[in-house]
Amino acid sequence: MITVGIIGATGYVGVELVRLLLAHPDVSKIVVSSVSFEGQNIVDIYPNLRGMLGAKCDGVLVDADSVVAASEVVFTALPHGVAEKYAAACVEQGKKLIDLSADFRFDEDEATFKEWYKKDYEFPAVHAESVYGLPELNRERIKKARVVGNPGCYVTAATLALIPALEKGLVRTDCVIVDAKSGITGTGRNPTQTNNFSEAGESFMPYNVGKHRHQPEIARNMTKAAGKDVNVVFTPHLLPMSRGIIATVYAPLERPSTVEELHAVYAARYANEPFVRLLPVGSTATTRNVRGSNYCDVSLHVVNGGKTLVAVSAIDNMVKGAAGQAVQNMNLVSGFAEKAGIDHIPAAF
Amino acid sequence: MITVGIIGATGYVGVELVRLLLAHPDVSKIVVSSVSFEGQNIVDIYPNLRGMLGAKCDGVLVDADSVVAASEVVFTALPHGVAEKYAAACVEQGKKLIDLSADFRFDEDEATFKEWYKKDYEFPAVHAESVYGLPELNRERIKKARVVGNPGCYVTAATLALIPALEKGLVRTDCVIVDAKSGITGTGRNPTQTNNFSEAGESFMPYNVGKHRHQPEIARNMTKAAGKDVNVVFTPHLLPMSRGIIATVYAPLERPSTVEELHAVYAARYANEPFVRLLPVGSTATTRNVRGSNYCDVSLHVVNGGKTLVAVSAIDNMVKGAAGQAVQNMNLVSGFAEKAGIDHIPAAF
Amino acid sequence: MITVGIIGATGYVGVELVRLLLAHPDVSKIVVSSVSFEGQNIVDIYPNLRGMLGAKCDGVLVDADSVVAASEVVFTALPHGVAEKYAAACVEQGKKLIDLSADFRFDEDEATFKEWYKKDYEFPAVHAESVYGLPELNRERIKKARVVGNPGCYVTAATLALIPALEKGLVRTDCVIVDAKSGITGTGRNPTQTNNFSEAGESFMPYNVGKHRHQPEIARNMTKAAGKDVNVVFTPHLLPMSRGIIATVYAPLERPSTVEELHAVYAARYANEPFVRLLPVGSTATTRNVRGSNYCDVSLHVVNGGKTLVAVSAIDNMVKGAAGQAVQNMNLVSGFAEKAGIDHIPAAF
Amino acid sequence: MITVGIIGATGYVGVELVRLLLAHPDVSKIVVSSVSFEGQNIVDIYPNLRGMLGAKCDGVLVDADSVVAASEVVFTALPHGVAEKYAAACVEQGKKLIDLSADFRFDEDEATFKEWYKKDYEFPAVHAESVYGLPELNRERIKKARVVGNPGCYVTAATLALIPALEKGLVRTDCVIVDAKSGITGTGRNPTQTNNFSEAGESFMPYNVGKHRHQPEIARNMTKAAGKDVNVVFTPHLLPMSRGIIATVYAPLERPSTVEELHAVYAARYANEPFVRLLPVGSTATTRNVRGSNYCDVSLHVVNGGKTLVAVSAIDNMVKGAAGQAVQNMNLVSGFAEKAGIDHIPAAF
Repeated sequence: MITVGIIGATGYVGVELVRLLLAHPDVSKIVVSSVSFEGQNIVDIYPNLRGMLGAKCDGVLVDADSVVAASEVVFTALPHGVAEKYAAACVEQGKKLIDLSADFRFDEDEATFKEWYKKDYEFPAVHAESVYGLPELNRERIKKARVVGNPGCYVTAATLALIPALEKGLVRTDCVIVDAKSGITGTGRNPTQTNNFSEAGESFMPYNVGKHRHQPEIARNMTKAAGKDVNVVFTPHLLPMSRGIIATVYAPLERPSTVEELHAVYAARYANEPFVRLLPVGSTATTRNVRGSNYCDVSLHVVNGGKTLVAVSAIDNMVKGAAGQAVQNMNLVSGFAEKAGIDHIPAAF
Repeated sequence: MITVGIIGATGYVGVELVRLLLAHPDVSKIVVSSVSFEGQNIVDIYPNLRGMLGAKCDGVLVDADSVVAASEVVFTALPHGVAEKYAAACVEQGKKLIDLSADFRFDEDEATFKEWYKKDYEFPAVHAESVYGLPELNRERIKKARVVGNPGCYVTAATLALIPALEKGLVRTDCVIVDAKSGITGTGRNPTQTNNFSEAGESFMPYNVGKHRHQPEIARNMTKAAGKDVNVVFTPHLLPMSRGIIATVYAPLERPSTVEELHAVYAARYANEPFVRLLPVGSTATTRNVRGSNYCDVSLHVVNGGKTLVAVSAIDNMVKGAAGQAVQNMNLVSGFAEKAGIDHIPAAF
Repeated sequence: MITVGIIGATGYVGVELVRLLLAHPDVSKIVVSSVSFEGQNIVDIYPNLRGMLGAKCDGVLVDADSVVAASEVVFTALPHGVAEKYAAACVEQGKKLIDLSADFRFDEDEATFKEWYKKDYEFPAVHAESVYGLPELNRERIKKARVVGNPGCYVTAATLALIPALEKGLVRTDCVIVDAKSGITGTGRNPTQTNNFSEAGESFMPYNVGKHRHQPEIARNMTKAAGKDVNVVFTPHLLPMSRGIIATVYAPLERPSTVEELHAVYAARYANEPFVRLLPVGSTATTRNVRGSNYCDVSLHVVNGGKTLVAVSAIDNMVKGAAGQAVQNMNLVSGFAEKAGIDHIPAAF
Repeated sequence: MITVGIIGATGYVGVELVRLLLAHPDVSKIVVSSVSFEGQNIVDIYPNLRGMLGAKCDGVLVDADSVVAASEVVFTALPHGVAEKYAAACVEQGKKLIDLSADFRFDEDEATFKEWYKKDYEFPAVHAESVYGLPELNRERIKKARVVGNPGCYVTAATLALIPALEKGLVRTDCVIVDAKSGITGTGRNPTQTNNFSEAGESFMPYNVGKHRHQPEIARNMTKAAGKDVNVVFTPHLLPMSRGIIATVYAPLERPSTVEELHAVYAARYANEPFVRLLPVGSTATTRNVRGSNYCDVSLHVVNGGKTLVAVSAIDNMVKGAAGQAVQNMNLVSGFAEKAGIDHIPAAF
């Protein structure tokens, strides 16, 4: 049983962490902080939590340093560029940190981080030891990590859709297309014109075409899996719903194949993955089937006379795409059962 | 053919006015203003309007005084308490003004206005001549008005649901209950926690229970119709949809009646009303059936062994509840056909 | 650890039971049946369950008699009028049954059941011993019951909103108004014009005004609480969302009161209720805050100069309004912890 | 002024035609038929139309032959494979027919039609003279046609997104990817598990991956535009909203280009198109901006270092994707102004 801390607990990712950790069997205490609401109680900001905190959490939003001091594992759910100093503090104090921003998603590749996020690394040594927290890629390294960079939501979906094919060299790498669609919780708690119900409801659109910051992260993951450069075109879209991501990934097959051939490769790759559900041939990944859960559903489709793979993945962007995967990483760094606290069964509706 | 102006053209009510007036057969020119976006073009803020302005409107957002100077009829779609000076200017310059805030909804009853809106009347003479713009109540007076106070959205629905019964003394007036539900466009363009899709979608709640500012306006209208004090309990709710209001109105019947008796009274009252559709007995008012139109559907239900009337009305809150009714008022003050420019047929879905 | 059976497992209530029971700590085995899909696997009908059944359930949909034979507790989630024979069989075989239809909601009052559901009691002795399964009313009796009639969804919300006031004689009973609004899952799995997304989305309406079958059940519960006849006017509405019910309940106060007075009475009444969350004065019940959980949030509002109580309750219609409450009843009849398996923390969005 | 007939008036496309034609300035009379509801009045099936029919339409649903007999232009909004005989009858009787099924979308290419729709041509001569009704491709031929095959909804969006680039040979044709997303009205009025709000809401998925019937129609249009075979991979998805299609179309550029170069080509191609709105560089097509209108918004994005074109188009699937385009075709065959009756300004929300 450990004490965990959440810095940035009143953002959407933060409060989703609170929900998951309150029910986690290996967490005995949760301390929470928030710059915007310091001194207030999280129950007053999120009334869904009323009566739910029990003995685990007093709900009082303290300052970030107090969270670090009190915790064995710290989650940072902050805007990009803020977590670094907390990671350095954790390393110094022998604690572990799981960051949900982009700060630790690029390991030692400061150049790419700087190109897309316009910021230098302040603590390069911390980056050097940090591990990218996609368990399906890095499980063993994560187990030993002190600082984990939790992947982007779109990135998680896109990567899991294609890595088995890339690892086996089954698809061409010159033009992988990732057409992804996300629920609106991805825009966060801060109200904007974009997430105003009157405009977001009953509407759909792509955004940041060709310039979304998840593009280099997807490309890096795919390149690692393929062992050679993968050229990725990535288009995110905003869905009129709260939770869920579908990544529809298109890749030309190196040689004409049947869907059964691809399915066998994916089945072998994901046989022991606790959170990837490879759907049977003929089924199609659907966000509803993973809503509220940490599962990633993957369905395979071979089209164009056997020449093109369409791999579809579905996740809940707030769970496997953010808070759930962070808890999965906490479980790994802490030696807990990997599914502890994140084994929710998705509801039918 | 007249020139009309819209002060506050970039709010939701304002842009809905732009849409209606662009297609209005008796409007030759539209001038628009916006404090927030002065100098910009409305097409850049509302890209749905791209290519739609034609020769009628250049889209350039000018200052409010220029709108008044250029127009024969001015619409003010502003926060409460701002329109008064424009109304005074219009009266002075021989123009007409239709205000969509609450400023001119209480005529000479400054006390009630002040109690609920915390503001004194600056130009009492203008209030003295202003007319409350519910055509079904005040058609002849509106025709001669120079300043019209467009009714509140909930108020329009609630009033039309009950006035025939009140006018004929068929219902008791000691406890009329108005349980009303509105789409989220009612919260306006300004993004807030309340209209954030992630929280407003898949959710429902009452708000401002017993203290919504439309309560005194409903009570005033019902009292006028009844010829005696009507005690109104009003509860608004927020629906997870963009447009539409349902008012479910409960009133004890003075004596046990059949729904057919009530229906006959309503049918007579609304026989010549161009925008009230009294539904046949057995049908139920539904927001979908009036969406995008200026119609108000009313259905009648007698329950509780003939002792209670449940009158249900449905409107589009942005049309009959705001911009459409304002155009109806413009038609009346200008001598145009009452349905000109607001005769849209609601779509089935 | 017990074996439970679900007859009617492929309806929406049935599959929600499957979800809850799979994660229930005191349930070791689940057997499922479905007339429509007998012989098929429930995973093929509800792919959200893929990989979730584990050792607890093989997913094969067998016949209803096999379910009864194999189970210690049987849930019937069937159309009205079908469960009676299974209840009789359970009684005979010494098993327990929790019925989610209306069949056992009226105890010995066959006349009311027959008036509203057009069916005679076939096994009056079973009805005579059956217990109405609203734990907040009947906890001790439920613990000893063999046949439990799970309450209607609207009924649960409406009853919990008002019984503290009724029990203490604080409100008048001649005209209680229940204006209730439900998510569309209440219409069930069977696709109809009513639940077609194209017509149900972005729309809202009342239905069955004055003649919904939950009216007599609400009136019966309130009458029991008040100790005298309560006259109830009930209007259900259909919300454009999947899950959630709000009941807005209006009752005239016997004497002018403050909201604090009412709140104190409710607080005492619900002090030990594990699933009722009485909100602090100033808060408002909202479906989002209970979504996916077994909680019922209640907020109190005194309006009309202290003369009218507006009590608002929020539940998830599929959990506290159906499957969750049924599991709560199973926990009671089985001697399990009352919150076992239904202590989900509602998410913030 | 002409009399028009609608065979299949009670389906979603049919009733949308009714709505548009009631307000059409050149239509004096509308006769309607429906197999399912023959003898009933369309107002009882679609209460949104109450009071809207006026003198133009009595609403009585007659048999199909009576519609043909009474009309100068006939619309068939029927399942695939049924319209052919009515087209033959119209040709024989000197009338014009616009079919909204797939029956006349493949002209003389019976082989493709048969492969995808499993049906022979019964009246090959009628197919020989029929014209594919995409005005942006075939305007002059449509003007002289007697039988017009209205395009598929996805097809309209996909085709308009890419033809300027294809006509000028700017993109490679070996692998065009069309990732398209449609609102649920595309599934029609018939209620199914797929369009049940409880499952369709808050969810998103692809369907018919690689085998949707619009694929050959898209490929045929693009091939014609390119003057050589275009290989198309097409994936449709279902959005949790009623109306709107986005087609996100990916095509490798023949040589690295700027978005401005592409934009200039599109601007020239669509300069005189009344219903295509080419958005300025930097804007993105969004369904909300065309909702309820006959416009197709197209936005261009060049990504991947100038090597890939992402062209995005947005339409209302029930208007430009079905009924509106059919009216556009009626205007063309009848010599009316092309925008008559379909010049609705899209609303901002």
